[in-house]
Amino acid sequence: MPEQFRALQGFRDILPDEQPYWRYFEQVATEVATLFGYRRIDTPLLEETAVFRRTSGESSDIVTKEMYTFDDRPDKEGRRQSITLRPEATASVMRAYIEHGMFKLPQPVKLFYLDMAMFRRERPQAGRYRQHHQFGCEAIGEEDPALDAEIIGLLHELFTRLGLKHIRASINSIGDQNCRPQYVELLKEYYRPLLDDCCDDCKVRYTKNPLRMLDCKDPRDQAKIAAAPKISEHLCEACQAHFDAVKQYLTAYGVPYVHDPLIVRGLDYYTRTVFEFTNEKDKLAINGGGRYDGLAELLGGPHTPGIGFGLGIERIINEMKRQGIEPPPERSTEVFVVYFDRKPELKQAAVEITAQLRHAGLKTEMSYGDRSRKAQLKQANNSHASYAVLIMEDELTRNAVILKNMQAEESDLESKQVEVDRSQLVDHLTQTLNQGQ
Amino acid sequence: MPEQFRALQGFRDILPDEQPYWRYFEQVATEVATLFGYRRIDTPLLEETAVFRRTSGESSDIVTKEMYTFDDRPDKEGRRQSITLRPEATASVMRAYIEHGMFKLPQPVKLFYLDMAMFRRERPQAGRYRQHHQFGCEAIGEEDPALDAEIIGLLHELFTRLGLKHIRASINSIGDQNCRPQYVELLKEYYRPLLDDCCDDCKVRYTKNPLRMLDCKDPRDQAKIAAAPKISEHLCEACQAHFDAVKQYLTAYGVPYVHDPLIVRGLDYYTRTVFEFTNEKDKLAINGGGRYDGLAELLGGPHTPGIGFGLGIERIINEMKRQGIEPPPERSTEVFVVYFDRKPELKQAAVEITAQLRHAGLKTEMSYGDRSRKAQLKQANNSHASYAVLIMEDELTRNAVILKNMQAEESDLESKQVEVDRSQLVDHLTQTLNQGQ
Repeated sequence: MPEQFRALQGFRDILPDEQPYWRYFEQVATEVATLFGYRRIDTPLLEETAVFRRTSGESSDIVTKEMYTFDDRPDKEGRRQSITLRPEATASVMRAYIEHGMFKLPQPVKLFYLDMAMFRRERPQAGRYRQHHQFGCEAIGEEDPALDAEIIGLLHELFTRLGLKHIRASINSIGDQNCRPQYVELLKEYYRPLLDDCCDDCKVRYTKNPLRMLDCKDPRDQAKIAAAPKISEHLCEACQAHFDAVKQYLTAYGVPYVHDPLIVRGLDYYTRTVFEFTNEKDKLAINGGGRYDGLAELLGGPHTPGIGFGLGIERIINEMKRQGIEPPPERSTEVFVVYFDRKPELKQAAVEITAQLRHAGLKTEMSYGDRSRKAQLKQANNSHASYAVLIMEDELTRNAVILKNMQAEESDLESKQVEVDRSQLVDHLTQTLNQGQ
Repeated sequence: MPEQFRALQGFRDILPDEQPYWRYFEQVATEVATLFGYRRIDTPLLEETAVFRRTSGESSDIVTKEMYTFDDRPDKEGRRQSITLRPEATASVMRAYIEHGMFKLPQPVKLFYLDMAMFRRERPQAGRYRQHHQFGCEAIGEEDPALDAEIIGLLHELFTRLGLKHIRASINSIGDQNCRPQYVELLKEYYRPLLDDCCDDCKVRYTKNPLRMLDCKDPRDQAKIAAAPKISEHLCEACQAHFDAVKQYLTAYGVPYVHDPLIVRGLDYYTRTVFEFTNEKDKLAINGGGRYDGLAELLGGPHTPGIGFGLGIERIINEMKRQGIEPPPERSTEVFVVYFDRKPELKQAAVEITAQLRHAGLKTEMSYGDRSRKAQLKQANNSHASYAVLIMEDELTRNAVILKNMQAEESDLESKQVEVDRSQLVDHLTQTLNQGQ
């Protein structure tokens, strides 16, 4: 016998028992995105590597160590293209916006994506998968701060409808190309005398991406971070006005929030508004997003502002479970068809009745594998079906079957088992089951 | 400006206007699979390459030229694993069945997958994509021929509910490890004297996979195929009894079908029942499937029979469009909020009212980018909203807005525009819009 295969390390199946959470999240997310005027888009799983390298930033964690990048087979001219399984969706959605000329549509163009698989080649660890799935919204083509509030308000509405508690929005502004370079100089000045005492990662960040030093999780750097100059105190006039307006519109949206001057986000393309949602009880991150007014140009498009977020569905389902939020249960079996004795004509009738009931919209099961009468009845019981249809020789000769109410008391024989003509079975069951609802 | 990026050759975005087809298919497929007792599973996009190489067959088209296979980065011991973007789902689902010990559950285990992306590195051509998406069902753990009828009946029910016409089921049996080897010898004997006159592909198939010669599309080989011995005339007793029973149960299921002795299917793992659905008007293939009683062993599991199908969603949507079947339309905008004059307090009120209406479940839009009164009204018109909420300075000072019925006649001013107190706006609109439904 050959070796037994398993899913690759860091990958997993989403099994049937887990699916109701996914379907429930999908339903609520679609509903909220639709109410807010977002329309669904799906982009391919593979893109040219440069789509992510250009936009996430050469020095970002994603690009440096976490991408599934490989060379495609040679084309007719023998060239091998570098292609990548997407690590995040915003760059792909913006690529699609530009490629399909969506700047010609009324702006903003509001798009959402759902169940899109993302790939990060992280070191496998509990609860972190190399393939995970996101829901996200992108509002592209408008820099109006009211749109920033809409995006954050949409997430707030989503969490509210899911019934999640203790969720808090934190916002910040990280300025734009006018004010951020000056702030970064200021930050480097501040860190220069402290650098010897910083962690190794921060020493690299100091050269490559100083803003990320504020994101450092190393305990020895926390005091330095707390005392560092804050970007939100060094915004240019336009960015300050934008940030003030976002806060005002968030209040109009009824979204409680705090201003956290330390949020910087990990991707190079963010400008102005950045935000994160956390569970304020245990300080666990839920998701984040931000404005990306320079992203389109990195992808070869015209200047196009935009704002959006991505939300890890595994992360949210985990939070739902922790908070005891249950999705609606699966539809249960309504009818189980049992044939007594393994005679061909009885089984033939069982198949026929099963097919008819399903066609009529009733969730119906029958037993396969020619099991004994007893084994079939046991299956019918275990299925939690409301009714069993018993096909027996005598009744079948007069074109009838026995309908057994599986919920009735064992003693109440009269309502428990009745003979029904086959021609009336579908109508009878459809009516009875609809009444019961 | 850098080059402008596009989706990779052979890949495409699914844009918002196309989405209703996908959502409609998804809804109907989920409904039918649920009625038949199938439960959803999702498997990862990447698997160890051998999962597909072992099961599809080394000589299959998929494995020889069409897989996205690459070497993963080295692990701690420096080993590089060969991994593959799945070209089909059955092997992955069976891998999951074995890995999670589903043979311990009551059999058969009935699973479906939906929207799962598949990858084939085909030469790009019209209507063929390198990433496509499938719906499929797998009934694993039972060889009862009634289950074969269920799987084919499920597809028939799906096509019926989608409203597709001219769909015909063709079935065949290709025997098992008892009778197929003898038949293959017979087939080779028949072809030996004809081989010089066969196409080059068939010469290769003769050695590697003679059964596939019956699948050849080359015109010069068609007469040879027609006169070749048919496998269904050389079945062993058990396979013949199984095939007879499948036909009988299909009749019980009410599925019209023909027996096409030339169906062999492209994958090595098929045994006994194979089937295809075609549009009988234009002879275009819709989808296919079959029984795979030897698959589990190829994956290192215990002997486990199974039967299933895969269905290309792009293919079905294409067929729906050709037959003029329209999905239910998207939910349209119900309310558009317009603020007259670019005063901050008017816009603030617009954001607030938009948020309130959305929270109450009304699909509501407002204009972004501080446009003129005229531009906003034009947007409101173009949105096809039923109502516009007009926020104006005078009314706002007495906490009221103007509600404009966008569907009423221009002349009917009285019912067209009414002043509504802000505190009553949500209730008023919710009631009015619910009445209209």
